[in-house]
Amino acid sequence: MTSDFVDVITTGLDALSPYKSDLRIETDDMSTLMVGAPGPLFDAIRDLFSAAAKRPEHVTMHVTLSRGCPGEPDDPNCRCDTLARAQDQSLAERQTLAAHAVKDAPDMGVGIDVQFSLYVMGAGGHMDEIYGCIDFLKDSGTFLRSKNFCTRLRGDAGAVFETLRQAFLRFGPAEGHVTIDLTASANSPSLG
Amino acid sequence: MTSDFVDVITTGLDALSPYKSDLRIETDDMSTLMVGAPGPLFDAIRDLFSAAAKRPEHVTMHVTLSRGCPGEPDDPNCRCDTLARAQDQSLAERQTLAAHAVKDAPDMGVGIDVQFSLYVMGAGGHMDEIYGCIDFLKDSGTFLRSKNFCTRLRGDAGAVFETLRQAFLRFGPAEGHVTIDLTASANSPSLG
Repeated sequence: MTSDFVDVITTGLDALSPYKSDLRIETDDMSTLMVGAPGPLFDAIRDLFSAAAKRPEHVTMHVTLSRGCPGEPDDPNCRCDTLARAQDQSLAERQTLAAHAVKDAPDMGVGIDVQFSLYVMGAGGHMDEIYGCIDFLKDSGTFLRSKNFCTRLRGDAGAVFETLRQAFLRFGPAEGHVTIDLTASANSPSLG
Repeated sequence: MTSDFVDVITTGLDALSPYKSDLRIETDDMSTLMVGAPGPLFDAIRDLFSAAAKRPEHVTMHVTLSRGCPGEPDDPNCRCDTLARAQDQSLAERQTLAAHAVKDAPDMGVGIDVQFSLYVMGAGGHMDEIYGCIDFLKDSGTFLRSKNFCTRLRGDAGAVFETLRQAFLRFGPAEGHVTIDLTASANSPSLG
């Protein structure tokens, strides 16, 4: 939200440099595609937005995350131990692991707001998983409030993006198609 | 993408005035919620973005659309004849009706780009519907290309938002939970 927007976008994309060996990264005129495992992927998204949010301007970022999409040829590059192990862990175990991961998240030194929706495609009957995920979110320390069709988080960028990674990986069917649609915001003048 | 962003947002929100009797509209610090039937809803989104895109600045808009979400109390306000009738129409009939609707869309006088993903929650086995929707999109006159996990459209705002409305309403299970995640862009300097 500045006439100097090209410089802000460049600042953000520069923060992706350490991840170029782990992720396939392609930028076009509308967005940047990143393909890889959830470890470097969420770290890269967090670092990109933190770099932009540390500047004074009001900035927002929109992200669509997808795992387990049928027919995608990149699956072998996206393997993730957390997801593989989730199949043998109870809901309570996964909630505890998720909460610890958020507590251990690095302090990025920049406060952000996020709103997001998590979608579980395919066979229904996963309401226990959804409610279990919501319980985790409410106790995560980053939960702000529920809104129509989405959840608001607020906190340091480290804790907020770790909360998103845990919600994305530890809940819902391990082999299913799960997506997250999120908007991040920082330095909004509406917050006074 | 301008330091004068408050004025651009106000221009966009002013374009919603004609729809205030048909839609419930609530703006907070991150986004605007609009609840109502798909007729006024898509018209309002189109008019909002067209008003912003007619200015010279590079502008983008992110929208999450949801229909049939279980447990939402607003269902009675969101009833839609197109959706109700879809249950008795063949895929070919719906493709024809969708194509005609895009041809009849008003000319808004402003070119835009959109990329979007359509998600069908709940029971699987709707691949015929998805492929039927893709065939409609490819023949819509607004199709630009497929990307990872999304579809690019380009054209006048009238035809582009009509394409989105038809994809949202005429394909997938009429009683199911369907969402669209879309980003619209105009006046990008990347397009040269």
